Formats: sequence, structure tokens, C-alpha cells
Amino acid sequence: MLSKKIAGSNMKKQYTANQSVTFNNNATFCVGTGRLGLGLQKEYIDQLRLVQSEIGFKHMRGHGLFNEDLAIYQERRGFDGVLQAVEYNFTYLDLLFDSWLELGIKPFIELGFMPHAIASGTQDVFYWKGNVTPPRDYADWAALVQATLRHLLIRYGDTAATFPVEVWNEPNLGGFWKDADRAEYFKLYDVTARAVKEVDARFRIGGPAICGVDDTTWMRDFLDYVRDNAVPLDFITRHLYDISLPVTDGRYGYPTLTPLRLATGETERTRAIIDDYDEFRGMEIHVTEFNTSYSPRTPLHDTNINAAYICYLLSKLGDDCASYSYWTFGDIFEEQGVPFTPFHGGFGLVANGGIPKPTFYAFKFFSDLGDGDCVLRTDDCIVLKTDGGYRGVAWNISPASERDDLEITVALPDAAERVLVTRTVDETTCNPLKLWHDIGEPQYPSKSQTELLRASAKPLIASQPVTGAEFTLTLNPNAIVYFELSPVVSETDWGFDYERSVAVEYTVFTDR
Amino acid sequence: MLSKKIAGSNMKKQYTANQSVTFNNNATFCVGTGRLGLGLQKEYIDQLRLVQSEIGFKHMRGHGLFNEDLAIYQERRGFDGVLQAVEYNFTYLDLLFDSWLELGIKPFIELGFMPHAIASGTQDVFYWKGNVTPPRDYADWAALVQATLRHLLIRYGDTAATFPVEVWNEPNLGGFWKDADRAEYFKLYDVTARAVKEVDARFRIGGPAICGVDDTTWMRDFLDYVRDNAVPLDFITRHLYDISLPVTDGRYGYPTLTPLRLATGETERTRAIIDDYDEFRGMEIHVTEFNTSYSPRTPLHDTNINAAYICYLLSKLGDDCASYSYWTFGDIFEEQGVPFTPFHGGFGLVANGGIPKPTFYAFKFFSDLGDGDCVLRTDDCIVLKTDGGYRGVAWNISPASERDDLEITVALPDAAERVLVTRTVDETTCNPLKLWHDIGEPQYPSKSQTELLRASAKPLIASQPVTGAEFTLTLNPNAIVYFELSPVVSETDWGFDYERSVAVEYTVFTDR
Amino acid sequence: MLSKKIAGSNMKKQYTANQSVTFNNNATFCVGTGRLGLGLQKEYIDQLRLVQSEIGFKHMRGHGLFNEDLAIYQERRGFDGVLQAVEYNFTYLDLLFDSWLELGIKPFIELGFMPHAIASGTQDVFYWKGNVTPPRDYADWAALVQATLRHLLIRYGDTAATFPVEVWNEPNLGGFWKDADRAEYFKLYDVTARAVKEVDARFRIGGPAICGVDDTTWMRDFLDYVRDNAVPLDFITRHLYDISLPVTDGRYGYPTLTPLRLATGETERTRAIIDDYDEFRGMEIHVTEFNTSYSPRTPLHDTNINAAYICYLLSKLGDDCASYSYWTFGDIFEEQGVPFTPFHGGFGLVANGGIPKPTFYAFKFFSDLGDGDCVLRTDDCIVLKTDGGYRGVAWNISPASERDDLEITVALPDAAERVLVTRTVDETTCNPLKLWHDIGEPQYPSKSQTELLRASAKPLIASQPVTGAEFTLTLNPNAIVYFELSPVVSETDWGFDYERSVAVEYTVFTDR
Amino acid sequence: MLSKKIAGSNMKKQYTANQSVTFNNNATFCVGTGRLGLGLQKEYIDQLRLVQSEIGFKHMRGHGLFNEDLAIYQERRGFDGVLQAVEYNFTYLDLLFDSWLELGIKPFIELGFMPHAIASGTQDVFYWKGNVTPPRDYADWAALVQATLRHLLIRYGDTAATFPVEVWNEPNLGGFWKDADRAEYFKLYDVTARAVKEVDARFRIGGPAICGVDDTTWMRDFLDYVRDNAVPLDFITRHLYDISLPVTDGRYGYPTLTPLRLATGETERTRAIIDDYDEFRGMEIHVTEFNTSYSPRTPLHDTNINAAYICYLLSKLGDDCASYSYWTFGDIFEEQGVPFTPFHGGFGLVANGGIPKPTFYAFKFFSDLGDGDCVLRTDDCIVLKTDGGYRGVAWNISPASERDDLEITVALPDAAERVLVTRTVDETTCNPLKLWHDIGEPQYPSKSQTELLRASAKPLIASQPVTGAEFTLTLNPNAIVYFELSPVVSETDWGFDYERSVAVEYTVFTDR
Repeated sequence: MLSKKIAGSNMKKQYTANQSVTFNNNATFCVGTGRLGLGLQKEYIDQLRLVQSEIGFKHMRGHGLFNEDLAIYQERRGFDGVLQAVEYNFTYLDLLFDSWLELGIKPFIELGFMPHAIASGTQDVFYWKGNVTPPRDYADWAALVQATLRHLLIRYGDTAATFPVEVWNEPNLGGFWKDADRAEYFKLYDVTARAVKEVDARFRIGGPAICGVDDTTWMRDFLDYVRDNAVPLDFITRHLYDISLPVTDGRYGYPTLTPLRLATGETERTRAIIDDYDEFRGMEIHVTEFNTSYSPRTPLHDTNINAAYICYLLSKLGDDCASYSYWTFGDIFEEQGVPFTPFHGGFGLVANGGIPKPTFYAFKFFSDLGDGDCVLRTDDCIVLKTDGGYRGVAWNISPASERDDLEITVALPDAAERVLVTRTVDETTCNPLKLWHDIGEPQYPSKSQTELLRASAKPLIASQPVTGAEFTLTLNPNAIVYFELSPVVSETDWGFDYERSVAVEYTVFTDR
Repeated sequence: MLSKKIAGSNMKKQYTANQSVTFNNNATFCVGTGRLGLGLQKEYIDQLRLVQSEIGFKHMRGHGLFNEDLAIYQERRGFDGVLQAVEYNFTYLDLLFDSWLELGIKPFIELGFMPHAIASGTQDVFYWKGNVTPPRDYADWAALVQATLRHLLIRYGDTAATFPVEVWNEPNLGGFWKDADRAEYFKLYDVTARAVKEVDARFRIGGPAICGVDDTTWMRDFLDYVRDNAVPLDFITRHLYDISLPVTDGRYGYPTLTPLRLATGETERTRAIIDDYDEFRGMEIHVTEFNTSYSPRTPLHDTNINAAYICYLLSKLGDDCASYSYWTFGDIFEEQGVPFTPFHGGFGLVANGGIPKPTFYAFKFFSDLGDGDCVLRTDDCIVLKTDGGYRGVAWNISPASERDDLEITVALPDAAERVLVTRTVDETTCNPLKLWHDIGEPQYPSKSQTELLRASAKPLIASQPVTGAEFTLTLNPNAIVYFELSPVVSETDWGFDYERSVAVEYTVFTDR
Repeated sequence: MLSKKIAGSNMKKQYTANQSVTFNNNATFCVGTGRLGLGLQKEYIDQLRLVQSEIGFKHMRGHGLFNEDLAIYQERRGFDGVLQAVEYNFTYLDLLFDSWLELGIKPFIELGFMPHAIASGTQDVFYWKGNVTPPRDYADWAALVQATLRHLLIRYGDTAATFPVEVWNEPNLGGFWKDADRAEYFKLYDVTARAVKEVDARFRIGGPAICGVDDTTWMRDFLDYVRDNAVPLDFITRHLYDISLPVTDGRYGYPTLTPLRLATGETERTRAIIDDYDEFRGMEIHVTEFNTSYSPRTPLHDTNINAAYICYLLSKLGDDCASYSYWTFGDIFEEQGVPFTPFHGGFGLVANGGIPKPTFYAFKFFSDLGDGDCVLRTDDCIVLKTDGGYRGVAWNISPASERDDLEITVALPDAAERVLVTRTVDETTCNPLKLWHDIGEPQYPSKSQTELLRASAKPLIASQPVTGAEFTLTLNPNAIVYFELSPVVSETDWGFDYERSVAVEYTVFTDR
Repeated sequence: MLSKKIAGSNMKKQYTANQSVTFNNNATFCVGTGRLGLGLQKEYIDQLRLVQSEIGFKHMRGHGLFNEDLAIYQERRGFDGVLQAVEYNFTYLDLLFDSWLELGIKPFIELGFMPHAIASGTQDVFYWKGNVTPPRDYADWAALVQATLRHLLIRYGDTAATFPVEVWNEPNLGGFWKDADRAEYFKLYDVTARAVKEVDARFRIGGPAICGVDDTTWMRDFLDYVRDNAVPLDFITRHLYDISLPVTDGRYGYPTLTPLRLATGETERTRAIIDDYDEFRGMEIHVTEFNTSYSPRTPLHDTNINAAYICYLLSKLGDDCASYSYWTFGDIFEEQGVPFTPFHGGFGLVANGGIPKPTFYAFKFFSDLGDGDCVLRTDDCIVLKTDGGYRGVAWNISPASERDDLEITVALPDAAERVLVTRTVDETTCNPLKLWHDIGEPQYPSKSQTELLRASAKPLIASQPVTGAEFTLTLNPNAIVYFELSPVVSETDWGFDYERSVAVEYTVFTDR
């Protein structure tokens, strides 16, 4: 049982907040989504509204722009079956992107997959059958891409030109791109990049959208190709997952986590490769997918340790990357079929029913943290200086065999009358997975069960006065904490005495 | 400092949930409000909406129906000052009661105070100057009462006939009724009760609305008068406050609390007096005001001990009383002037800014408790039987000198696979007063401070499996806990393993 | 151009409102919907919210309960492809019906079509590919039906038992049921009806859900079968469309309308057949689909004449039928693919973008009309008696060659001081199709264009005093009018003079 | 009866839209409000929300900042009555301005009236008793002003410094300023202006807030004083009302309207006076109140002619004035007591119950008109050039003796395929006063009556194709029309034919 803790097993750390650390907080630049067609759903939008109201991502990326359910590519055929005209239908795309923009989130466009009607083969991926073969005729593909972008420019004006454009998804896997054919992908990239720029040179274009398989050779070959053929390229994209191969049982997978010292190895290597080229040195890397596990049936995603691990990544990834898009914001997601239960190890920050998972708060905390003057960064906390105080995030990643409380004491250069306000998400304060487990893991929770789960998934807020030149945070295993240390000027009202207010006694009756 | 607790100072209690206790849960029948004219305010309605969405009271009672700000009584005078006509203006009354009824709450009408224009004197009460003298001419008063009730019948139909009607407020105090003139009040009651019944016999009428000063003689005299003069009377009203005279400092008062054994003494005595009369035996008592302190500047109101004490009262008052109306639902209240700070010891369940106080949850918990088969009632908990389980409320009233944790173990007649879900409001989980104090007691909190205070004022939800025939609750000092013990049938999905989900390890790399 | 009218071409009619007419207003019992999977969409729910807030249907029926997108029927297979278990997934069904019930609308369940995995063939219907073949094994089908109904009973309790259940859709067409195989359908009905009753006898079950092809023989054969085999049957279902075969042009069809004298012929014949059987006499007929045109690409649906024609049907169909479900409430609908434009002749009462079509108001007006004492019914109006007045609906069906204004004068048995308030929907006051046409028939209207269209689609409200024992309505071509004639008691305030208020002059300055 | 029109009495006007007219559209810079304390009311905020969502004013000005109901000035006194401390209470002010700013509207601060506690006399104004005497000690006043502004700077930061500040209201009337004492006002202005600038020099300060009595001598004396004493002055304020002395009957007044040629005479004279001073030439004039009538019981306010007259003023006042603040946005207003009826001739754009009056749309239309290239301005219309088209407002002021339809034909320099979309508010399309009259002038309309009134108060939207180089508007008496003439590019879908869609016939059955 994880809720037990070996008595006295505290870990104590002492830091000093006087560094000047480069910290690029790109936590909210982009987030992932289930395939775009699912974005028409009400539950999806409800989850997105929650995410945007508390976190506020700027862009969103997902698969399936050209999937049949969004119905963009259409053919008009006579009774004889002869093609009379190609039509593009943007009815659903408008519904989709209108609702995104209303919620303050813009597309990070992933071009893919292939409409069956113009595909060269039938190979597909996922429950929802995205076709992963090259086009029969690249002209059809280019026309589709151009028509879509032109429509976006008409509908959204200059804003549309700020939507980044990425070509395809993980072509280095045969499952996503027929035979993982490198030359064919480079052709696709080439045709697409030129077609996009032809529509409007302001569109920023990137690739190769690979994951961590053969990634170093793919990256070098891609950059060579782009350079040698003078293909437009504005940014590099890749993915990052930080687990071992999961052990599966039934529908679910149980992986282990990459140790911290190796967690950002792949992006660091990509940075090094890019910077190796004179032409590309310093070019932006956008991690267009990242998470611990790459499978939407990994219960790890729903746990507190996931939140703590992601905090670590959010504190680090900005060193090399312009963005890192958590895969995904919500659990309306169908790659392996429709989930049978609200908690099922999906990628989402929010479980179906609108229940925030612990990792939701990892992003909320880094969103609230914002930018600023970083004075401390360690493997378990980050601290920024504010006007008269400090704010930061701390976390305590605790694998099953290393479950200690963590006590962090931070020495400050200055003492003042301050208050430390903490928001704590840990296994006892904000753990909807455990509550759901305890009530029997209901497949279809009743309305009141869902409300209970939602109500339980809130950080605990606490406060304490701090007068000296240090403060201390105590984190239970897998806790994440957002804190603000702010100056206090007391405005006590005439005759108000807090201590006396709470120190109430019973009346003593002597003769009654 | 109250946040410290003497180590090992636990109190342990052992109960058995197999009684058959009479428990009348009338906690939500009625609640009090600041003077009715304040009910036009947006902030008032926002607070009421919160209260209704979480608690759901059925009736609401407050002073000032005939106060000048509601503008009901109007006179049309010529340039010569001669009265041409009396007019009744219901523009504001309609706005007020329309908004109450939209929120599902009906008036418990208190008739008073006296419009200055028809009053016999100028004595008034409160910052808002309610005139507390008898009418110059009782016919004017009766006409005003009748016009108002007739208007309500026109506007709200049969519903209006279900609004209880009470005559005046605390006439046993000279401050509320000139000279506390008993005979004059009986006359007022007599004239009013007959006038009300003349409009519609369905209106239920009650009095004498007294508080605990000379209350036994007032009550007997009142009942004698009503009996002897055959005046209509449908229910008895009185008030109940449970503190000593407060020690004042500046704007604030610091009282002590009536010991539990005496807390309901006044209503018990009233019950006995009524039942002494053949004519009135068993007649409903409506406690049209109750609280710990009778002053709107008692910081006690904002504390956790207040919530715990009120839980005790809610578990007991139904024995003798048909309702007990907490004075008041919110802090838009002006009897002593406009508050200078959000926390100021006001009567409200909700502090200005929409911040629930601990006592808010005392009512929410008894509202959620509802009715049912009571199997245990003690001085610190109440348990009802449900379908396959139990639900209840527990509390730990802890004066400053008796601050112990309380461990309650309840033995059950039956064992089963169950889950215990608790919602805990205590000094560490839901204590907005302390947070406000720690951040400097800001007079005019910023929007983000108010949001922080609101977010902090939530119960902590926890769960644990219970398999045997007993369960245990642990309550910190002044905690109140709502709990449900419900049967669990596990619906574990194919391959899902909770323990394995949370027991994640780091990957071990042997050669990397 | 239709907006011109030949001068002086008024039609005048004179009626007397003193009949006692049987009028069963079942206009709001049921409405149709696009396939259920579309009900997950936000735009669908937004349209439904509008419909429910203004009209308030009680039930809703649509195809596709068992379609793959709702994902109910699932198979668990090993890597060898061997079936390990059948699973039913109600995640999406719960989302769907939860949102319906929140909007106050209950399912009228249509069981169909066949999950591909248990179908005997591959024939399908519609863009969205509903499989229309019998099950390979009827036991699989019965298990699916039973599992679904049992789940509904668990989730919605007694309410679920009030959902009517219909077996399949239009089996008399080969497109909807392989070979329109009558015997096979009777088998399906037999197995299904018994399976349903086995779950809970309170479920009401009906069929044969046929349209107007071979309908008389189908109906008799069905009733014979049910009677001879003692199959449960609680009500009869059929469809009704009132157009000729449309002339098509591109995507669209242009039909003519059935003359009024023949419009309800099919339901009258069905009534006669049923009443011919001793066993079934008087049994409820539910018209589970009706409209003018049966094609979702008939611009007629979006016109004012459609609204007027539907008013006629709503005034008549209750004579023989317990309900008549307009096909459909909204334009999120994919039978012929995703619409390219907001107005495209879809079935919906609401066009995409939330724009009410004229026919929306036909239903709103009959919803507002409600039940009551019918004193007049003609081919162009219906009048009910109210407390002190009258309310009714009038319409002026005006084919292109018969475009006259219609002046209806209704003589009343009683004169009184009254006001006639009219809400008029006609080609000039509420004609969003024309406005959309005038602004260029935009495929993807901008937000402001959509708002303009929505704002334009409101009835014009007018009033006039009526003092005598008659009143007159004037209807432009294809107008529909809801009217209330209500008693007026003037409450003129002191010194207020309406005529003087509006008769303002300029100041005359003689010497300035 | 006004609804009759003499046949053939059309007025025809022909204009050419090729001018280059200076048109300053300041219609939405500021609006008036009932006394600030009323701003705490929910109904007030509901009306303001409606106004802001459709019109969007930038500032709001009203009386009573220092009135007792806002409770800013407070004194702390001992039991002996001796003043111990002056306190400022901003609890209500924060509620008020927070809610304004949430709705996007900023204060235009009017400093006044005098708290009774620091006033030199007891003279007051209005039902709500604003004290209109100078301070006993100007230091108390200056301290109050400074404390208030400092609080606003703390709460709202830089935004607060953009709130314009005006000193007092109509001191040229003895009713608003004791004895209309000119020298005393100049002293008040002097002390106040210096006190304001001492707090923050960014505050812009203005006066003398006079109405049209002795206005020319007041204005000159004020400017002389300010110049001679080097008192800060950033802008000039005055008021404008355009009626004769009303004839009164009971509670109501019936005035005549100033002819158009004289309507802006007062502001023109003020402009001339200011520009006469070298020091003040070109200084902004803010008309901090304007309307037709200056009395809140003038039924004229609720009529269509009021809307038409206001359109004229909105087209002209920008010539001389930086703003002109319509007095007032809503009918929560108590200067003459609480209204007895929803329509009572109040100043509001919105009647109580949230019913827009015709004049509401005068402001909405000028808000929608916005700024731009003015190509035509006459006494009955204004036209701006847009990208490819035109937009404008037209009105037809029709006193009782001059009720003609007005036909305006505007010649354009360019012909194109365009659509003319009009929004018409006139006596038949949007006249809630008439509807309220017809239903009996109910004092306390039921919920459904209020909804009817609200639904009736919408502009009628119509469209027509325009192909030539001119367009024509037809306006009924007292109509106001907003129009847009926009280019049309038809996007007709494949096979869609509008004319054919609406030209439906009955099916002809030859042998049935």
C-alpha cells in the first residue's frame, strides 16, 4: 500500500535562492488533442474550456485534419462513377476552429493523414483508420493543403498566418508512414513545404515530426535533404516519451520511468545535431508530442507521480526547445477505441466527466509561474523572484521503492514580513484515481459520483507567516506544490484580534 | 497559537449504531437575511445563489419589509402638503421576491417595522433606522399589511398563501418595540392576525418573535392573551442565541459559548410552556433567529468552532422546533453599518466576495444528510441508515483549553465491502479566516485574493475501504465531517490493477 | 419574384368560434434527430438547447443507436483473432442520453441498425454506412438489445422504463432492410419484442416503422403476424411524407406538395386498418417520422410555405395519431454527407449556426397553444378558448400560383375589452433563407453574418385593442400567426396619458 | 390616433453620397446613470449588461458618489459622542466599480454631493436626499476626495488615472448648490482641482457642470476664475436638454421639442465662449448630461420620436463636443421616488424588466456605425463609406402634425452588385410602449408579459438586392434605420436555385 510511509524517512534539502538561472517557460505554448474530428464533440469542448480557463494554452496540435470524419476532401461523381469535380467542404472545420479560437487556442496544424480517395494504398492506423500511405498523385495532396490554408486565411485573416504548420506525424515509424520510407517522406515534405509557402510565405513550416526511433539518422538525413534541396524549413519538430516498454495486462500497460539524468537526452541530442549545421544553428525545436508513456492505456498517466515527473520536464525542456506539447489535453480520444471507464490511463490532463488529473495541476502551476527572474532551479524545485517576494513550484518524484517526504528549505538573500501560500496536489489531497478506485472503479459513474470525483480533484491551499530569510516546504511522496511568498502589510481593523477570535471558551456558570 | 496540538492528546470514543433515535432534520426550512431592501443588491443575490445551489433553504426571513428603501408605503400630497391618497408601490418588492423564488426560496414574512409616515413616534433601530413605534392609527397598519398580502396573492397565486407570517421582531426588547410594551404588542398582534386572516385564511400566522429576555413571562402572557381573545395563532416564534455578553474591543465583541447541556434550554422551556396549554399543546415552534452570537461583529461567527457548535444545535433543535433559522445566510448586512472588511464577524454563512465560512458547511452537511432512519445520535455525531450503508455528520467542538483530536469508532450491526468517503472542514482544510489573517487581513482584497480565499474554502474529500463491522473517524479540533459509508461492488476493467498503476519504478539501465 | 403580390388579391374568410371540436395537440410528444452518434456534437446540443428552450419536445427518435460511432458493441479478440469476449461500451451512450435528459428530452428508442460485427451481410445505407442486414445470429442481437436496456435501467431508473421502443426503420424499403424481407422483419420484431419485455415489462414496444410504400399490405401482414404469434405490441409506428417525387438539379430536389385533402390519407388508412382488428382497435399510432419532403436536400424545408403546411398537419394529425415526430429538430445530419452550406434543404427546424427556420415557429406556436377547449378548426386556423379570451394559430398556405393575402374574421359569442397580440412569421418578417440568398448564399458565413441571420429569424409582435365580438387577422402569403386575445383591465397611473405621450410637437418660438 | 397616416403623404428626398463631411462619432464615450448607490442593485447591473453587450459605452457618470448609501465617509465616535477618527469605507464602492469594469465601462467621476456629516447645512435634493451645501471645512472635503482617488489608484492601478473627474453637478441651480453661489462653487472647484492633481497629476479634471440657466455668464466667470487663479482645468462640462417647460398632469410631464435648428445652440455658444480665450481655445467640451427632457417622468422618453430626435443629436454633437452622455442608461432611478410602473417616462435606454426602448437602438445604431469616411450628412441621415459599400443611419422625426413617410434616395458614385440590409425601429416594428399600453398598462407585469415586451422590442431586419448606383430607404413616421450596403459575390451551391425553392406548387393528381 502506497499510502503508508516509513516513519522518519524524511529527505531534507537545503538550497539558496540567489542564482541567476536561464529558465524558459514554454509550458503553455502548445498542447495535444485527440484527432481533430473529435473536437466537434461537446464533452471535448467542455474539457477544453476547463483547461483553457485554468491553464490557457496558446496552440493545439492533433492528428486527422484530413480524416474522413472532418469531411474536407469530397468528390462529386456522376451516376456512372466518373469524377466530375473535387470539392472541399469546410463546414466541420469551421465549427472546430471557431470553437478553439473562442476558447483562446489556435491550431498548430499537423498536415495528415491521407484521404482514402487520394491515397496510394489502404494501410491505416488506429481504431479510427487514418490512411498512412503517400498520395497517388502529389498534386492532389498539394491542392488539398493549399485549399485548406486558403480557406483559413479567408476565415481568420492574419491570425491564420500565425498557425504553425507541421508535415505529417512520426514518419520514422512504419505504422504511421508506409514502410517508414525516408525518401518518400522527404518528397512529401518538399512538395508540402513549397505548396504552403506558395499560399502565404508567412506560414511557418516544420518537420520531420519523428519520435525516438532511429531519430539521429533521420534528423541528419532530413536536414541534409532540406539543405541540399533548398526546401523551406522554419522549425524542427520531434516527440519525446520517457518510459520503458510497458508490461501489458489486458487492456493496460505498466512501464517504468526514464531516470531524470536521461529524461531529456533525446532533445539534447537533437539540439546538438541541429546546431551542427551552419544553416540551422539555433533553429527552434518544437516537441510536438511529449508525455511519460506513449500509450493511451497507461494508468501511470492518471497518477500523482506522473504530475511530479512532468514538473521536472517542464522545468528543463525550455533549455533546448521552443515548445513541448503534452499529449493530450483531454481523454476524448479514440486511438485504441472508445474508453470503457473514466480512468483508463488516457493521455488527458482531464478525465472524461471533466475531472482534472494531478498532471493538470503540473501545467496549471507552470502556467501560474509564468516568466521572470529565475533564482533557483534544482531537480525538485524552481523559484522565481517577484516584486517583494518569490514564487515557485516544487515536486517530489517518489518511485515505489523511494517513498520519502521531502523537506526543502530555501535560504533567501532578504528577510521580510511575508506569507507563504501553498497549493498542494498530492496523493492525499488531490488523487481522483484513488477515490475512483476506492468507490469500486465504476465504469459509468453516476452524476453524483462524477461530481464527487471532480470536487475531490482540487489542490489544498494553506498559508503560514514567514518572517526570517528562509522558508521550508514539506512535500509528501509525489506531491507537487505551487507556492507564493508575498510581502504582508497588516491592515488589522479597529479592535480585531485574530488570536482572540479563535480562542473561544465555554461560559462558566457558577450558580446556574 | 491554536494550530499547535499537544502530542498524544487524542480523545477516543466508541459508539454503536443500532439505536432508533427520533431525529427531525429541519435544518433547511428557513434561514435569515439582512434587511429586505438589501435583497435588491447583486452581491446579495450572488451569495444567495451560492447558498441555494449547495444547501437549498426553503424559506427566508428578515427585517425591514416596510422600511423606506423598499418604498411600499407612499403618500400622494398636493403642493399644500395635504394628503390626497395613500399608494402602495410594489416595484421593488416584486424585484425582490421574484429573485428569491427564482432561486427556490420563499419568504417567511416578518411584518415590520413601521413606515415613518404612519408611526406614532420617531424611535428607530439600527444604522438603517427602522422605526419601532406603534402605528398612529392601527387602521393604516392593517391596510398596509392587507394590501401587501393581496398583492402577493395576485403575483404568486397559491404559492403566496404558503408564506408563513410573523408579527414584528423581538418586542420584548425596548430597542425593537417602544418600551417593550407588552399590551401594545398584543394589540398589534391581535389587529394584524385578524387582518391577515381576512385577506386569506390560508395564511399561517405566528408570534411573539421574542428573544431570551423575560421570555417565559412574555410567552405565557402572550398565550393567555391569544386564548382569552380568540386571536388566530398558527405557530409560536422565538429566537435563540448561545453566548455570554461579549467583551468588546473597538468594533468587535468576544463572547464565550453556552455549554452544550444548556444550549437548547430556552427552546425546551418554551416547548414546556406551550404544552402546558390544552389549546396550544404540540403547536409548532419556529425559531426565527438563532446563532451563537447575536451581534454582527463577532469574529466567532467566522471560525471553525462556530461550525462545530452549530452542528450540535442542528442535531438537537428538531426535537422541539419545526424550524430554526440561522441568522443569516450572507454578509450583506447593515445593522451596525457597512462592514469595513470581508471577515468582520458577520452573521453570514458566506463572507462578502462569495467566500463560504466553515458554518456554511455545517448547513450543507445537514442538508446532504437529509431525513432517514437515525441509528445513532451523540453530542458529537449523528448517523443515519441508508440503503446498504450509513451516512452522517460528526463534529469536534474544541474550546481553546480543550483542543484534542477526536477519534470516533462506530460499531455497526453488519459487515460489508464498503467505502467511507469523508468531507472534512477543519482548521487546516477549510479555514478562510486564517488565510485572510495570514495574508494581512486586507480590507479590500484584490480579485485574486478573493479567488484564493474562495478556492481555499472547500472541504477536503478522502476515501478509505471499510470491510469490517465498524468504522473510525478522526477529527482535528473543531473539525466537522460529513461521511457516507457505501457498499462497493468492484467493476475492475480487463487488466486494470490499481496497486500496480501507482507503484511505478525508474527504469534500470545496465549498460547505458 | 415571390415578394410581389397582385394588388387587391385578398381572400376573405369569416368563421364563428362556437364549435366544440376534438383537437388533440400532440405536436411536442416527439421529434426526430440525425443519427445518434451526431448527438455527441456540441453544435447539435446547442441547436437542441434552442429547440427545447422555445418548444420543449418530450421525446426524440433517430437512427444509429447501434452504429459503430457510438461504439456500444465491442469484441475482445486475442492476437490470433479469436473472439475472447463480447463487451458493451456505454461511455458514449451515457454522454448522449445524459445530455438529452438534462435538456428535458427523453429517447424514443429505435433499435437499429446492425453492428457490422454481428451482421449477416455488408449492405449498408447512407453516407455513414448503417448496416441493414439481419443478424447472423438473433441471439447476438437480442443480447445487445437487452444489455442496452438493462444499462439504461441502471443509469436512469424508472425513467428509462418510459422510453418507448421501436423495432428498426422502414423495413418495407429494401434500402433499409435487406430485400424488404417481410418475414425476416417479423422475425426480428418477434425476437426483439420478447427480449425487451423480458428485461422489463414496463417498456412499451412498437413497429413496424414503415413508410408509405406497400404500407397497407405490410400493416395488415404485421398485425396478423403479431396476433397469430401473440407477440407483444403496445403501439403502431409508421411514417408520413407529403410530396411528389422531386425533380433534382445537382445536389437538390424540387418537389410539389400533396393537396390538403390527401395530406393525412395514409394515417387515416392506417387507423382504419388497425381498428379493423378487435385485438388492436384504438391502439396508439406513433408517426415516428413526418415532414413534407423525405430528402435532406429539399430547399422547400427552409421556406415559409413549409411552416404553413406543417401548421395544417399539426392541426389534424392528432385526430388519428398519438404522436407525429418531425424529421428532424436540427441540421447536424449526415445521411447524404456533410452539408456544404447552412441552408441546404435539410430537415432541421434549426439551420446550422443556430438559425431558426420558419417551421421552427410552427412547432413553437403549437407548443404555446397547448391543450384546451377547441372552439374552431378550419383548413387555415385553430382557436382555443381561454380564461376570458382566446388563443390560436392561423396559416396561409400559398403555392406560387395562389399568392393571396388572407383575411380571417372570427365571430365570437362574447364581446369584451380585449387586446389581440399576434406573433407573425412570414416572408417579410422572418425569412432567413431569403436574407441568406440576398447576401450571396455564403457557404461559410462569418460570425457576424450568422448573427444577422439569427437576429432576423424572429416573429414580429404586434398588438391591437379589440372591443367588439369579433376579431380579424391578416396573413401575407405563407404567413403563420400565433395570437392571443386577452381581457384587458387598464391600470393607468396617475396622470399618464398614452395618446398625449406620443403626440409630441415642436416648440413654437415666437420671438427667438 | 397616431397609427393612422394620411394616404399619399410621402416625403421624398434625394441626396448624393459624395461629400467629405467631418463627423466625430462620440456617441459611446459616456452615458449617465442613476445615483451610484443604486449600482449595487442586481436589476441595475442586468440592465447595464444588456446595454454594454449591444452598445458598449466607455464611461459612465452619475450623482451620489459621496451619498450615505455608498457609506464612504464614516466617523468613529466614543460613547460620549466625541469624534475619535474619520474612516473611509470603500466596501460598496469596490463592489460598484468592480462590476462596472467587469462590464467594460469606466467611471466618469462626478465629485458630489456632500456627506451630511461634513456639510455646512441641511438643504438636500431628490427623494434620496443628496446634501447640496458646501463643506463646513474644505479640508474635510479635500481629504475625502483624496482618500477616494488614492483608493481607486491602489485598486485599479493606471486604469484609475484615466477616469475623468468632474466637480459637482449643476451648481448654477439653487436646487443643486445652495443659493447657486457662484463664488462658493469656484472655491469648491479650486480646492478640489488642486487636491485631485496632488494625488496624481494624470487625473483629468473639469467643470463647471452647468445646465442651460445663466449658462453664458457662468461659463465666462468660471473661465476667468480658472485663468486668473491658475487652477488646473483639463476640460469643460455642461448639460443639454431640448424641451420646453412640460405641462404636468399627475405624476407626468408633457413637453414640446426644441426645433432642430436650435437643438445644439447651447453647445455651440459654449464652444464659442471657450474658443474666445487664448488659454482654452479648442479645449474639450464634455456634455455630461443630455436628453430631450430633463425630468424622469416624461413619457416622451419612451417613444419612437425620442429615438429619432436623439439620432439627429448624435449626428451633430460631435462637431463641438468630445462627448455627450445620455442621461441615463437604465430606469433604476430614484430622483422622484421609486417608479410605480415599468414605463413611466424615465430617462433610461432600458425600461425596468430589461426592455429596450426605441432610443436604445439610436445608440446601438451609432455604436455599430462607428467611425469612418463620412460621405453624407443631412438632417435625416448620415452615410459612411466602407470597403466596397456604405453604412449609415437614417431617421424620420415626425411630430404629431407632420406625420409623413420619408423616402430617402441616395445617389452613389459607383454601381455594384450589392445587398442593402436594414434594421428598422419604428412605431410598428419596435414599440414596447404601445404594446404595454394595449395590454392595459400593467403596473407590475407578470413574467410572461415582461418577456413579451422584451421580445417585441427588436428591430425588423430586411434585405434587398441593389444593383444600380443608388439606393432608397423608406421610413415610417419616427422610424430610425441602420443600414449596410455591402458587395455581394454569390456562392451558389451546385443545383441550388432560390427562386425555384420558394415557388412550390401543389401536386396535380389526374386520376386519384
